[in-house]
Amino acid sequence: MHTTAHLLDCLFKPQSIAVIGASSDPHKIGGRPLAYMRRSGFALPIYPINPKQNEVQGIKAFPSLAAIGAPVDQVIVAVSSAQVPTAIDEALAAKARSIIVFSSGFADVSEAGRQTQEALAQRCRDAGVPLVGPNCMGAFSAASGMYATFMTALEHELFAAGHVGIVSQSGAIGSYLYGLAGDRGLRFSHFVATGNESDIDVADCIEWMAQDTDTKVVMAYLEGSRNGERLRQALRVARQHRKPVIVMKVGRSEQGAAAAASHTGSLAGADTVYDAILTESGAWRANTLEEMVDLAYACSIAPLPKGNRLGMVTPSGGAGVISADAASQCGLVLPTLPQHLQEAIRAIVPFSSPINPVDTTAQTIADRSMFTRILEHVVAWDGCDMVLSFNANVGRSEAEFAKIRDAYFALRQAHPQRLIAMSMRARPEVVEQLQQHGILYFSDPARATMVLGAMAQLGRNLAQTPELAVSTPAASPLPAGVLDEAAARDLLQSQGIPFAPQIVATTADAAAAAADVLGYPVVMKVLSADIAHKSDVGGVVLNLTNAEQVHSAWHSMMERVSSRAPTARLEGALLSPMVSGGVETVMGVVRDPVFGPMVMFGLGGVFVEIFKDVVFRSAPVTLATAHDMIASIQGLPLLQGARGKPAMDLDTLAHALVKLSVFAAQHANALDGVEINPFIALPKGGYAVDALIHKSAQSQ
Amino acid sequence: MHTTAHLLDCLFKPQSIAVIGASSDPHKIGGRPLAYMRRSGFALPIYPINPKQNEVQGIKAFPSLAAIGAPVDQVIVAVSSAQVPTAIDEALAAKARSIIVFSSGFADVSEAGRQTQEALAQRCRDAGVPLVGPNCMGAFSAASGMYATFMTALEHELFAAGHVGIVSQSGAIGSYLYGLAGDRGLRFSHFVATGNESDIDVADCIEWMAQDTDTKVVMAYLEGSRNGERLRQALRVARQHRKPVIVMKVGRSEQGAAAAASHTGSLAGADTVYDAILTESGAWRANTLEEMVDLAYACSIAPLPKGNRLGMVTPSGGAGVISADAASQCGLVLPTLPQHLQEAIRAIVPFSSPINPVDTTAQTIADRSMFTRILEHVVAWDGCDMVLSFNANVGRSEAEFAKIRDAYFALRQAHPQRLIAMSMRARPEVVEQLQQHGILYFSDPARATMVLGAMAQLGRNLAQTPELAVSTPAASPLPAGVLDEAAARDLLQSQGIPFAPQIVATTADAAAAAADVLGYPVVMKVLSADIAHKSDVGGVVLNLTNAEQVHSAWHSMMERVSSRAPTARLEGALLSPMVSGGVETVMGVVRDPVFGPMVMFGLGGVFVEIFKDVVFRSAPVTLATAHDMIASIQGLPLLQGARGKPAMDLDTLAHALVKLSVFAAQHANALDGVEINPFIALPKGGYAVDALIHKSAQSQ
Repeated sequence: MHTTAHLLDCLFKPQSIAVIGASSDPHKIGGRPLAYMRRSGFALPIYPINPKQNEVQGIKAFPSLAAIGAPVDQVIVAVSSAQVPTAIDEALAAKARSIIVFSSGFADVSEAGRQTQEALAQRCRDAGVPLVGPNCMGAFSAASGMYATFMTALEHELFAAGHVGIVSQSGAIGSYLYGLAGDRGLRFSHFVATGNESDIDVADCIEWMAQDTDTKVVMAYLEGSRNGERLRQALRVARQHRKPVIVMKVGRSEQGAAAAASHTGSLAGADTVYDAILTESGAWRANTLEEMVDLAYACSIAPLPKGNRLGMVTPSGGAGVISADAASQCGLVLPTLPQHLQEAIRAIVPFSSPINPVDTTAQTIADRSMFTRILEHVVAWDGCDMVLSFNANVGRSEAEFAKIRDAYFALRQAHPQRLIAMSMRARPEVVEQLQQHGILYFSDPARATMVLGAMAQLGRNLAQTPELAVSTPAASPLPAGVLDEAAARDLLQSQGIPFAPQIVATTADAAAAAADVLGYPVVMKVLSADIAHKSDVGGVVLNLTNAEQVHSAWHSMMERVSSRAPTARLEGALLSPMVSGGVETVMGVVRDPVFGPMVMFGLGGVFVEIFKDVVFRSAPVTLATAHDMIASIQGLPLLQGARGKPAMDLDTLAHALVKLSVFAAQHANALDGVEINPFIALPKGGYAVDALIHKSAQSQ
Repeated sequence: MHTTAHLLDCLFKPQSIAVIGASSDPHKIGGRPLAYMRRSGFALPIYPINPKQNEVQGIKAFPSLAAIGAPVDQVIVAVSSAQVPTAIDEALAAKARSIIVFSSGFADVSEAGRQTQEALAQRCRDAGVPLVGPNCMGAFSAASGMYATFMTALEHELFAAGHVGIVSQSGAIGSYLYGLAGDRGLRFSHFVATGNESDIDVADCIEWMAQDTDTKVVMAYLEGSRNGERLRQALRVARQHRKPVIVMKVGRSEQGAAAAASHTGSLAGADTVYDAILTESGAWRANTLEEMVDLAYACSIAPLPKGNRLGMVTPSGGAGVISADAASQCGLVLPTLPQHLQEAIRAIVPFSSPINPVDTTAQTIADRSMFTRILEHVVAWDGCDMVLSFNANVGRSEAEFAKIRDAYFALRQAHPQRLIAMSMRARPEVVEQLQQHGILYFSDPARATMVLGAMAQLGRNLAQTPELAVSTPAASPLPAGVLDEAAARDLLQSQGIPFAPQIVATTADAAAAAADVLGYPVVMKVLSADIAHKSDVGGVVLNLTNAEQVHSAWHSMMERVSSRAPTARLEGALLSPMVSGGVETVMGVVRDPVFGPMVMFGLGGVFVEIFKDVVFRSAPVTLATAHDMIASIQGLPLLQGARGKPAMDLDTLAHALVKLSVFAAQHANALDGVEINPFIALPKGGYAVDALIHKSAQSQ
């Protein structure tokens, strides 16, 4: 585990660097780091290791690390895979404090390679030295000129230092992102591509950058994580430091996941679980590289807005409608301007539409000062957190831009708390000026609005203080053996999860007597540890209204179940009152191979199965999170009293979710899953009716 | 009505043009058309009309149209709103064959303006002369140099002629689109911005461009249509001509619609109805200007693919995953390469992953011929319709691009039926070369995939021969007066829509007798023309299992309803058998103010109300369309036999939808709506249980 940030200081800020396999050819993998560092003026010692040469690219070379005679902070390994173990031994012997292995030919090609890689990583872990790779593109820190990477793109484009961090599992995507984002005007603090991740992974690097003062925003590209807790921890640290993290996690779809599996061979957690993890951690999940770049661009230029209120100013009504549509899609609102502002705007342009979007009309194209005077009113207004203006082709002409530039820059200065963005076509020089002055630029007005929406969401996420962890007191282990429904019920009930009253009966007579006690109508269900889904074998009978019906239903049910599940041992039946006027929900626990126990909530039946209207969160959850979960399902109105029905008791639901999640956390490794289906929400109270607990193989 | 295309020939291809209000200042509205046409070399006669000057911008001027002494095809009106009526009279007197009015100050400013505009349009319609505007930016045809527009952007950017048509209601958005699309390398055949649409509207112009041989694809920006049938007709013609139409209809959201209403003052049809119209017509609905530009770009360069099978070739596994994810989102599939191709690819690069996406590995970066040889195998394979390759930064360097260029161009020539697209960073010169050779270019691999998905969808849409119209035989008018439930039922039943058996009872005794006849259990519902939603007043009792229950339920129901709806006249009750084992659906008709009767289908209850799982189509529909409607709802599995239930009889549903839709079409103006809720689908058959018919005000 490398969760302490200083461990990676030697990766990004080494005091000296040795390159094993240093090449005189600046285009070779072993030559590139030297070439890049010479060009960028890395001021600290560099030691090419090459037994055949006295100097490499003009730098004094050494036959081995031992021959240097000075401490070496970082060792880059750029030799064939067969030579890597020796190189790592040498690095560890020389007390290197970080090792980067470029070489491929490990887990990326074969099982044997995976084993070799694992052994190397273990050796480094034992020595407490972080290992990046193998099969990785390396790392760089632009400010110091530290380029421990063979990224080809740097041959042509070595951008000046900036404040955006890139963490990528894939070297190719990391490199492409560097170029794409660079084209958009972004400049970078640090970069790392983690390759096979035998030791250091994406999460470790996110955590380091989250604490790095040179980095304002982190872009992370992820195909799959093997250590969910490390990723959670990294995102938690980022949130504590109020640092936006934009994550593109690929393999969302079945096609994509299959492609990712054939590519990395790594077992990834389920995609819905990644969604939950990223949502609860306050990170932003991007769907495309472009989206990632756009949002990182915005976060690197301007502070996050405090709210989601957008003021939109445009000389074209159409652009206002486009922006309002996009705003609805991404959770922004366009508050109506107060009367006095509307009047002030109409005093400037009588036929303007000063509601919001503010349509300044084409009149303000002929006289641009009218436009900027209206804009001033909107930016100065406390009722909005951000202002987007549409400026058509103004940015294409220096002369036209000059007419509005000073007004925008002055507004920017006068209202530092307001996010200001422009949508127009513009020359690169204009875009650069805007960037320098902290004004966001986009050509497409809908895209501009969507990015503002994402910023507002990030602002909201990062303004929240992370919740205190829910305490999970130690618990005694689960009972031995398979847990039948009655045992599952007892266990969950002892956790404080309410269950419907019920009576176990082992004869038809006892069943009828039980029903008399419970009150009619009743439900009768077969009791058998061998039957998971009772209704599938005809083991559930609803709405029995008298003792006689209970009697005859007992016999026919037992007969039916015996014939459909001939090997199941039937222990009797459970009787419980049949409730009406409630809403069926489902609560559950799923153990994700990467992220551990996740608690789940949804409406019962078809809503979960067909509409996938279900939400996951890491267990345990707080009461507030449980309420958030309930509020986030699409079917929420059904619980709030839609269609003339009373509202259900959401507190009872939320408390039950919390208790289930604590139980899940306490038995994280012993449980494969829990299904409470249904948990019936009632106007007052609510209770579980059926529960199943699946123990994990290791706990049985 | 202007549905005949030749009427607009004079708009886009006039043989002579006069400008009333011609100005010597090339930057003024009345000066720009002259300046642009002089620059572009419009070769046909231009007549500036200006009583104060002998020449305008070097062209001989005339004091009036009458003074020209030669026929004038097109008249541009660029005078103040007060002078417009006179100008139009003059144009009609001179037998002009098309009139464009730039001047604003009509429906865009006041009700009086709207009336003036309406009168002018009527005068033109009476004369059979198409009128564009007022308050419009005009039109142009790039090939002939006919620039009847004052679009400012043209001062700086007058692109060469091309094959993309732009039709925009908004001049500002049309102009911005011209620039944005121009930046992307698109070139245009014709442009028109329709402004206030007193006569010629967006639909008319789409229809003309659909038939224009110079136009390969049409981009249309729409805030609202006032004549739904005209838009339908235009899109029908486009489909007949296999011409892709990409429509951005704004005002999707409530915020957006409010902005649009305050902007245009026009009453638009409901947005879900636009969705239905665009879907059924085979057009593509774009959400952003960028999406529109991307897709128009692709359609203007390459033919539409015949299927949705994508082959993806990449030296980076990550880009393959990104593309596979996007493919899933947009309906593309990545078929697995056959064994012999996988072997052929492994023979080139042993460690490649040749499934699809084909990961050629970084080895093919060092030797690009390995990459293009693999690509050749995939492009030549009949199992895919389109091939996307990821090429990272290749396009940034002429030298690198030169290594693959010829192979791509040769593949393009050898396989004209295959769509070929590249995702990489590239210099403008490289992009231009690709465009000239019919190869699509995108920087973002996900965006590239999404555009290919849209092309595949358009290809599928346009390959279909438009359905034959459903015949709607003349029908006798609806009965007079309000239609109660029984009357609604009789009417719909006579159309062939099956209904549940039912008996009307006017006393409790009669109700019990009726129940005996129908068989238990039964449902009893109050009968009253004054009560629309019976369950809201306690007027529905379910699951009555014997005569005694019917008796007592009758009395309690009547009492309840009387107290909750004291003014309603109670005519008795309807009794029908209570069915189980079916699935409740809802069918309906809604009359859209713009598009007329639309037929609706969804699952009953919460699925429609909360999950909005509902589909609309223009009435009448064919049986095939009815089946498509049913298949398009998210809850379809519930009808197909999910969760161990039997599959329902979809044919019965589809036939009922067809019949309802024919009824809706026959009584288009007499109906406000029809609700059949529920229509119960059964494993065999199915029937309506409740029906309401809302007559329109005009038919009452």
